[in-house]
Amino acid sequence: MEIIRDPNLLQQKMLALRQTGKKMGLVPTMGFLHEGHLSLIRTARSQCDILVVSIFVNPTQFAPNEDLEAYPRDFKADEQHCKKEGTDILFYPSADSMYAQNSSIWVEETTLSKNLCGASRSGHFRGVCTVVAKLFNLVQPAIAVFGEKDAQQLRIIERMVRDLFFPIQIIRAPLVREPDGLAMSSRNKYLSKEERKAALCLRKALLLATHLFEKGEQSPSILKAAITHEIKKTPLAKIDYIEIVDDQNLTPVEEIKSSVLIALAVKIGKTRLIDNQHLSFNPLK
Amino acid sequence: MEIIRDPNLLQQKMLALRQTGKKMGLVPTMGFLHEGHLSLIRTARSQCDILVVSIFVNPTQFAPNEDLEAYPRDFKADEQHCKKEGTDILFYPSADSMYAQNSSIWVEETTLSKNLCGASRSGHFRGVCTVVAKLFNLVQPAIAVFGEKDAQQLRIIERMVRDLFFPIQIIRAPLVREPDGLAMSSRNKYLSKEERKAALCLRKALLLATHLFEKGEQSPSILKAAITHEIKKTPLAKIDYIEIVDDQNLTPVEEIKSSVLIALAVKIGKTRLIDNQHLSFNPLK
Repeated sequence: MEIIRDPNLLQQKMLALRQTGKKMGLVPTMGFLHEGHLSLIRTARSQCDILVVSIFVNPTQFAPNEDLEAYPRDFKADEQHCKKEGTDILFYPSADSMYAQNSSIWVEETTLSKNLCGASRSGHFRGVCTVVAKLFNLVQPAIAVFGEKDAQQLRIIERMVRDLFFPIQIIRAPLVREPDGLAMSSRNKYLSKEERKAALCLRKALLLATHLFEKGEQSPSILKAAITHEIKKTPLAKIDYIEIVDDQNLTPVEEIKSSVLIALAVKIGKTRLIDNQHLSFNPLK
Repeated sequence: MEIIRDPNLLQQKMLALRQTGKKMGLVPTMGFLHEGHLSLIRTARSQCDILVVSIFVNPTQFAPNEDLEAYPRDFKADEQHCKKEGTDILFYPSADSMYAQNSSIWVEETTLSKNLCGASRSGHFRGVCTVVAKLFNLVQPAIAVFGEKDAQQLRIIERMVRDLFFPIQIIRAPLVREPDGLAMSSRNKYLSKEERKAALCLRKALLLATHLFEKGEQSPSILKAAITHEIKKTPLAKIDYIEIVDDQNLTPVEEIKSSVLIALAVKIGKTRLIDNQHLSFNPLK
């Protein structure tokens, strides 16, 4: 495995490899890799010749009040994980090399990014789109793998690929959970022992809503009320949002007449966690 | 020469050609080709294997009050020009195929685009950056040629290539003038005979300023006053802006201590024309 820090060096290497007809795969991450990331890496590994994993805590997707400085990092462990999973190139750039001091070009999404996490994290998806566009141009992969944990991000990246005609296939990888159901996240590291227990309320509430839906409940407001009620049983939990949205355009639905996503963000103490559940609509039911 | 209208078909073709190691060149245009465009096409032709010329009157770079509908078009003549200049692929997409109905991704430049034409043409450079990013991803050229006539556009495209790491070399092609000095532009077609004569004031004023500069005048305000005075001699002319800016960051200079660009936009009747002149600063002088 080769570690490359310089973006231009990476690009030269990828352009040369491309001439040989190799199929490139990219897994963009912010590091502090867990089983969720590793599942993305394995998915990519099985579908490409040259696998690039990027580790970059992208400053422009953090708002000033967010946890950029505190975001957990462990490059040595990440390096070992990447090597073990058969990564060919680990791209680990500095912020200065990814953003020139007078950089002034931004990629912005103007509809899908407005609600859910976009409503509470101003500028977040502008930062995500911009850095992913940079990574796409540097690596020029045929495939790139993103996780369903960040459901809104995934839809926005799919939209970016469609609208800007990136010749890249986006592969969705399922959310990976801890044995007790907590969605894996680098931010879980922030949780105290007590908070870690409290954090289970997200999954529990989603399972309750799924159960009600499967029993025939199709009213988003009733499902949302049930989720709210369930989460409020946990004193440490503070709801940021609970939304039931069309899984294509991410707008809230008034009735469940298509496949939807239940998406939620909940603060456990100071740690903001997200989780989601897909509900498949069956018109024959 | 092949004419392709479908963006996805073009992309598939370009990806296949790329596998063969060919060097691709792109000249993006809005059609109604004149000698200025042809000089771009010739420049590209001499530096690539496969030459793509695009003709697309990009709706998103026109403000609602601008001349999108009136913009001159003559596809048959353009086709002949392109064929004659050795174009391999003429890309001629519809607006619907370039912008899905719910398209929502925009590429925005946030500093270089704020003054000069950006100040009077709201959203113009957002439209330009977005469509050029699409064209770059569709064609994936090694080189792309842009004209110095649109000096601000050229700097913004260079910035986009740098910031988003497009693996593309931008080649600048010099402004081409009519024998009497008027900068070539598709919009010159709008001019009546009287206006056509009046339009010479742009070039005349730029030549006057260049002359003063070469005689030793280094004050932008004096040069701007001279240009203003010269243009005001023409009753049909209405100044939009006259600016003397650093040729890298496009911000107005208070003294000429670096290479600068004199850029101006003047309305002749209802037709808005632009022109510019580069002044090379010689520190030894």
